[in-house]
Amino acid sequence: MSIHEECGVFGIYDPNGGCARTAYYGLYALQHRGQEAAGIATINDRELSYHKDLGLVGDVFDDETLERLNGTMAVGHVRYATTGGGRRENAQPLTLKYVKGTLAVAHNGNLVNTPELRTGFEYKGAIFQTTTDSEIIAYAIAQERLRCPSVEEAVCRAMKGLRGAFSLIVMSPRKLVAARDPWGFRPLCMGRRGDAVVFASESCALDAVDAVYEREIEPGEIAVVEDGKVRFIRENCEGATSHMCIFEYIYFARPDSVICGQSVHEARLEAGRILAREHPAEADVVIGVPDSGLDAAMGYAEASGIPYGEGFVKNRYIGRTFITPDQKSRENAVRLKLGALKSQVAGKRVVMIDDSIVRGTTSRQIISLLRDAGATEVHFRVSSPTFISPCYFGTDIPDKENLIACHHSVEEIRQMTGADSLGFLSTQALDHLAPQAACGFCKGCFTERYPVETPQA
Amino acid sequence: MSIHEECGVFGIYDPNGGCARTAYYGLYALQHRGQEAAGIATINDRELSYHKDLGLVGDVFDDETLERLNGTMAVGHVRYATTGGGRRENAQPLTLKYVKGTLAVAHNGNLVNTPELRTGFEYKGAIFQTTTDSEIIAYAIAQERLRCPSVEEAVCRAMKGLRGAFSLIVMSPRKLVAARDPWGFRPLCMGRRGDAVVFASESCALDAVDAVYEREIEPGEIAVVEDGKVRFIRENCEGATSHMCIFEYIYFARPDSVICGQSVHEARLEAGRILAREHPAEADVVIGVPDSGLDAAMGYAEASGIPYGEGFVKNRYIGRTFITPDQKSRENAVRLKLGALKSQVAGKRVVMIDDSIVRGTTSRQIISLLRDAGATEVHFRVSSPTFISPCYFGTDIPDKENLIACHHSVEEIRQMTGADSLGFLSTQALDHLAPQAACGFCKGCFTERYPVETPQA
Amino acid sequence: MSIHEECGVFGIYDPNGGCARTAYYGLYALQHRGQEAAGIATINDRELSYHKDLGLVGDVFDDETLERLNGTMAVGHVRYATTGGGRRENAQPLTLKYVKGTLAVAHNGNLVNTPELRTGFEYKGAIFQTTTDSEIIAYAIAQERLRCPSVEEAVCRAMKGLRGAFSLIVMSPRKLVAARDPWGFRPLCMGRRGDAVVFASESCALDAVDAVYEREIEPGEIAVVEDGKVRFIRENCEGATSHMCIFEYIYFARPDSVICGQSVHEARLEAGRILAREHPAEADVVIGVPDSGLDAAMGYAEASGIPYGEGFVKNRYIGRTFITPDQKSRENAVRLKLGALKSQVAGKRVVMIDDSIVRGTTSRQIISLLRDAGATEVHFRVSSPTFISPCYFGTDIPDKENLIACHHSVEEIRQMTGADSLGFLSTQALDHLAPQAACGFCKGCFTERYPVETPQA
Amino acid sequence: MSIHEECGVFGIYDPNGGCARTAYYGLYALQHRGQEAAGIATINDRELSYHKDLGLVGDVFDDETLERLNGTMAVGHVRYATTGGGRRENAQPLTLKYVKGTLAVAHNGNLVNTPELRTGFEYKGAIFQTTTDSEIIAYAIAQERLRCPSVEEAVCRAMKGLRGAFSLIVMSPRKLVAARDPWGFRPLCMGRRGDAVVFASESCALDAVDAVYEREIEPGEIAVVEDGKVRFIRENCEGATSHMCIFEYIYFARPDSVICGQSVHEARLEAGRILAREHPAEADVVIGVPDSGLDAAMGYAEASGIPYGEGFVKNRYIGRTFITPDQKSRENAVRLKLGALKSQVAGKRVVMIDDSIVRGTTSRQIISLLRDAGATEVHFRVSSPTFISPCYFGTDIPDKENLIACHHSVEEIRQMTGADSLGFLSTQALDHLAPQAACGFCKGCFTERYPVETPQA
Repeated sequence: MSIHEECGVFGIYDPNGGCARTAYYGLYALQHRGQEAAGIATINDRELSYHKDLGLVGDVFDDETLERLNGTMAVGHVRYATTGGGRRENAQPLTLKYVKGTLAVAHNGNLVNTPELRTGFEYKGAIFQTTTDSEIIAYAIAQERLRCPSVEEAVCRAMKGLRGAFSLIVMSPRKLVAARDPWGFRPLCMGRRGDAVVFASESCALDAVDAVYEREIEPGEIAVVEDGKVRFIRENCEGATSHMCIFEYIYFARPDSVICGQSVHEARLEAGRILAREHPAEADVVIGVPDSGLDAAMGYAEASGIPYGEGFVKNRYIGRTFITPDQKSRENAVRLKLGALKSQVAGKRVVMIDDSIVRGTTSRQIISLLRDAGATEVHFRVSSPTFISPCYFGTDIPDKENLIACHHSVEEIRQMTGADSLGFLSTQALDHLAPQAACGFCKGCFTERYPVETPQA
Repeated sequence: MSIHEECGVFGIYDPNGGCARTAYYGLYALQHRGQEAAGIATINDRELSYHKDLGLVGDVFDDETLERLNGTMAVGHVRYATTGGGRRENAQPLTLKYVKGTLAVAHNGNLVNTPELRTGFEYKGAIFQTTTDSEIIAYAIAQERLRCPSVEEAVCRAMKGLRGAFSLIVMSPRKLVAARDPWGFRPLCMGRRGDAVVFASESCALDAVDAVYEREIEPGEIAVVEDGKVRFIRENCEGATSHMCIFEYIYFARPDSVICGQSVHEARLEAGRILAREHPAEADVVIGVPDSGLDAAMGYAEASGIPYGEGFVKNRYIGRTFITPDQKSRENAVRLKLGALKSQVAGKRVVMIDDSIVRGTTSRQIISLLRDAGATEVHFRVSSPTFISPCYFGTDIPDKENLIACHHSVEEIRQMTGADSLGFLSTQALDHLAPQAACGFCKGCFTERYPVETPQA
Repeated sequence: MSIHEECGVFGIYDPNGGCARTAYYGLYALQHRGQEAAGIATINDRELSYHKDLGLVGDVFDDETLERLNGTMAVGHVRYATTGGGRRENAQPLTLKYVKGTLAVAHNGNLVNTPELRTGFEYKGAIFQTTTDSEIIAYAIAQERLRCPSVEEAVCRAMKGLRGAFSLIVMSPRKLVAARDPWGFRPLCMGRRGDAVVFASESCALDAVDAVYEREIEPGEIAVVEDGKVRFIRENCEGATSHMCIFEYIYFARPDSVICGQSVHEARLEAGRILAREHPAEADVVIGVPDSGLDAAMGYAEASGIPYGEGFVKNRYIGRTFITPDQKSRENAVRLKLGALKSQVAGKRVVMIDDSIVRGTTSRQIISLLRDAGATEVHFRVSSPTFISPCYFGTDIPDKENLIACHHSVEEIRQMTGADSLGFLSTQALDHLAPQAACGFCKGCFTERYPVETPQA
Repeated sequence: MSIHEECGVFGIYDPNGGCARTAYYGLYALQHRGQEAAGIATINDRELSYHKDLGLVGDVFDDETLERLNGTMAVGHVRYATTGGGRRENAQPLTLKYVKGTLAVAHNGNLVNTPELRTGFEYKGAIFQTTTDSEIIAYAIAQERLRCPSVEEAVCRAMKGLRGAFSLIVMSPRKLVAARDPWGFRPLCMGRRGDAVVFASESCALDAVDAVYEREIEPGEIAVVEDGKVRFIRENCEGATSHMCIFEYIYFARPDSVICGQSVHEARLEAGRILAREHPAEADVVIGVPDSGLDAAMGYAEASGIPYGEGFVKNRYIGRTFITPDQKSRENAVRLKLGALKSQVAGKRVVMIDDSIVRGTTSRQIISLLRDAGATEVHFRVSSPTFISPCYFGTDIPDKENLIACHHSVEEIRQMTGADSLGFLSTQALDHLAPQAACGFCKGCFTERYPVETPQA
């Protein structure tokens, strides 16, 4: 419940226009990747327009704004910001003027060499108005553009200096450029709709706008759309090896997305199936914690033969304005968000599946809710391994200090959550839950081994 | 997707105070019953305060407002308004001064003798500032109060003149009064939390505020809370017979609510099971249309032996600000709201369950979505009978003109939706889906037979 | 600075339509009479529409709303509310349904027999949803309408029971009715623009909408517009004698208004001239406290022969969102609102004119500002007598407790404000400052003698 | 009415803290210099915080925000934007990180070598995220800082490359730096309040915050506040000669400000006096068009011996939300903004003073208003010469195409406005209206001779 992806990106070239509107729908489909800010920049007859603000896609845009933006190219962004960065200034796409005209830059990911890059630019007299990596990337492109004949080559050269995760969309008055870091941390795919070319963080955004999935942008690869034609620059692909964030499959991505050939929904079912084999339980019903635990619960039920049931009703109306109960209140937060389905759990031994544990406090409350509803046993199964290390590549999995598994054994966590038994997915299983994925994985948060050198804690 | 309940009510007496906050959480749990307006009135040291406005509970209230309201008694309301009635003035609770001081009135339901009552009061010089039945009810109470020694007796006498559905909460400076019409159309239950007494449209609101369910308010019954003690007035219960809206079980109520002893979730499972027997299908997977078709789909799967699967991902972020695609757009509305899980349906014969059909247009789009995702057959099953007549008792089931089943046979509807086969729950089955409900049912929208004489069309 | 008028009313019949827009401009011209809420109700093809809310006219209405309201008749209202009454529910016009259809009621003034009237209606079963006199008046009309053949006769009969100040506009689907209390406390005039008939609290609103002033509505008189024709009902004029609020001339009304034949601007000049004769001063310059003291200062200068000068610049941007300096701040409120023109006052003996003194605290700060700017002497002259009694007839002149002149002699007030000399206009002068006014005056706040019996303190 | 200043700046160092609040009050006093956006940046314990947005000072800031900003140094800005620049991104102060930490930059004025500077920086790889000169200036400072030991020296060196108008306040974590361009186009003064040092565009802002005026920042001069001590860097003063915008005296500045030793109010009186001598008239009354024509009208009256009178009442409530009458409306815009005081002008020969004429359309409407009010003759006098050339130095005096005097003779303008006679202040008079000003003037918009080479049209 408390881990967040940092961003989603969307780009479209459509000679028939209406790109702002299409980007709006695309961003709606990517809203789960970022809920703090949204933005769209468009090119109409070589002129750049944009609108961005704090808030959900539906709050940031109205009909009039979309009409005004219009355009035959668009780049869109949804943003989740880690603490301190929730400023309006940090909303993307970043739009700018540089030596060759205008650019819009949208970025999902996180660089690990930001300080060096920033200092380097500052020593050339640069000023920074945001705290985003996108501004760093924009400077890198602008610097390279001075000695490059085209924006795509500038992107290509700039990429060589960037270390970390970036799924990037850059738009100039004539070109739409999509690029992905050579480690392939974050997803980025491409589709078509008639003459239109679409890029998106996840395939669910292609489906939403009626585009047909075509392929992934590969690690290190750059796609350039110009006059309706797509070219690929693979200069940075050499030596690149894919390390797709495994947690995209387990939690971040939308279940109806297909990432590197692997259905996210299927991966979650499979995680549940493996979990059933690794941590079987004697029980009467398998339930999932909504929404992200449901798929794995079905997989667990299937593999274990224990019936699947719905254990909870989630209150769909609790949004960002919800006032959390204070100390004096006798209500408790979990009870307001989840209602237990007593008829499903009363008098039963329950297997409860959730996707992960960060601090364990919410899990304790949910288990208590089940017991109040009459569950006789609660066997807690988690469809990911224990977090033992932070993420440096675009999510907010916190530092060790805030990860329960860095300080407590599984048995201690079981006691703290009040479960009758507790089982996590093994790290070995991570290699098996996405069998159709044509990529390798970054499992750093579970293994403390990262494909790129990370900053010192 | 397009049928709405008209209201939800919540009342609390708690000598420890904080009632505005508790009502806020209670209304959050009842938000599914009305999303257009919300309001809370409180009594603090005999003084009435209130706040109400258009919008969701979370938009209408902030911390400061709840702090200001506070109080040892509260009555809350969430409202859905049929067309033309979405005015701010119609938000409830209605607060007023009358001969004996102040009152707050919150009401779920719909009267059928409003015109006569209104005219009668107007002929005594009354003025009406809203178009709500609550104002009618308030006048009725005020009139009776002139010759009654107490507010509860005035409510009791006023009820005799009201024909139709009302689950009512009335608050005076010293008393909290809950009342239910003698036909028992809409739910209303009572619970306790320590010294506190709580009334709510559904038991899920009791759970949310940690109150323990105690009993239903029976048809015709009045409950009076005064100085922490509860009394029941059963004068209007004589001859009363219960006709709980059967569609509360099928669609309106929250699945974790228990109404008249019957779990709503279980009733939906049972509807699915019956449907499987009444309309079997040769298929590979059973899926439900989120959210309300999911339970019946599980029941169908269980009874049919066909595996249950998730067929769709619902976009949780589409709210009231969502801009629907216009004619020019190449996106379609259903595709933005639902993503098909291709891995679940591709190459399969699918049984698709939804709770009801009003016009059939959305169903057609969803079935088309499934076919695009690769479903080879789509067997459409509906967990309610065909609507053949409007509702006069507190929901917006429309008039015959707008009900597809009034103009088309099942076979015609099948063709219009593009399904391979189509089956509705039988009207006979309505008596069997809630076997634990200690009440009779109103099935008027399915049978055109109502327990109370209805207005001429 | 701290005395407020309670309301302004505007009504229009225009067969050419566009009445909402005209009412909007009319209310803008009357905004000085009430800044807390605004509203417009219109009749379009016998259908009533309305919009009202808290805020200034410009905040409450936008183009779309005016377009929607449109109409061939309109009644508008701006409201200032005394403490506790700033609720949105109290915004006017009050719109209602009663035995004969719909009505809109807008009211400027204050009744003194509200409690008796209210109780009387309550004893017939009435409920009150606001705390405004308008609701009382509406009940009175509705009651009389039961035994009257027309709305105007119902107004005529209802008026007989109302004691106090009311300048009233009532609109039914076919008629626009304007009425004024028999004591003539508050202004109400009528004009024409082609076929259109316009009523307004002040003539400045006629000017704003290009209407030509025709006449006052006389005390007790009723004007009825029906099918473009105007009739007058004078049944309640018998025995009526006019008591126009003298403070309308001194402070409330806009200087460019003409009330009962007397220019408000000229009355203020005249007050200044009289003041110069009653309280001469040896000085070098006469200045006024903006905005309302400026006219009297010019009059004083003219009569005394001392040059007129501008002493202050008023900050035009300080509105309702202005954050007043707190205790810790070293800024002071007057200094933020007024800038002294040092070149005008430095080294000079100054006569400073203000329109009235309520508590005296602001005056002290302004005089201190002048001394800091180098004024050698400050002779403070006030263009009204001392307040010695509250107003019961539609303004918020407070009770004796809060009137400095009820507790302090003129000499004490002089010392408290820090002036070198202090002079108030005499009460005798009140009869001479509006020589062209064809009416008598209410001078109750200055003399404690009112034309109608007032409530016991 | 239609000419706008582009900005106002305010800076404060106060060891006692509360600087955000003081800046808020200072900006309120400068609000007339810019109404489109407002911002404050503060330093608290070396940490930079800021808040800025579109809107008036009172809309942009609330108590909570001021409390959060707090600080012992602050820089504030109010902005008026010429067309196309009304973006939120352009709001100031600009805050940024650069090689030596953080900076906040606020700027009033306009550079004429922006394109060259921008291109120069872009050729070093700079990116521009706004369209403001402030970003150019920030780059210039950042570039110089690479080879300078301090921020003030960087400012000093950067200034050498800037051509045009800038009154600048720069804040680093430890220093507050104020600087003025060597031509001295825009005002900038300094004052003290106890230990606090204050900079402001106009002295009225010093008065508002109880600071005592100390001196102007001279053309080319830099003031540095560090640890409470003020130092002046005069390296760029050599060869600098002052060219204070003469229109600051005639129109832009607040009348209670003193600029370069000259009271603005006195300058306007003097302009009126000169006008009386240059263009006498046979008339009965002299009136001014509010607000800016009033002072000159008094001066004209004084010099001519014709009595001064108030001719108009200005509607104080017409703000940015005001809906202008459309074509169909029978109201006219001027009539809504100004009410004529008939008693002052009816049957009289009127001298009407306004500060300037841009297009002449408003003047025609005002003169028509006077004639409708009964004026027999209208002698129109303008307290500035005819505009014949645009302003390049921080105001929006438009290009020749939009200046009536570039295309029409005075006699033609007289006919177009409908005046009986028309007279403009002579350009010679410009040198005499501010006799106490210790500075020279820029009169470019009246003479087409500018102290700095301007861009080609």
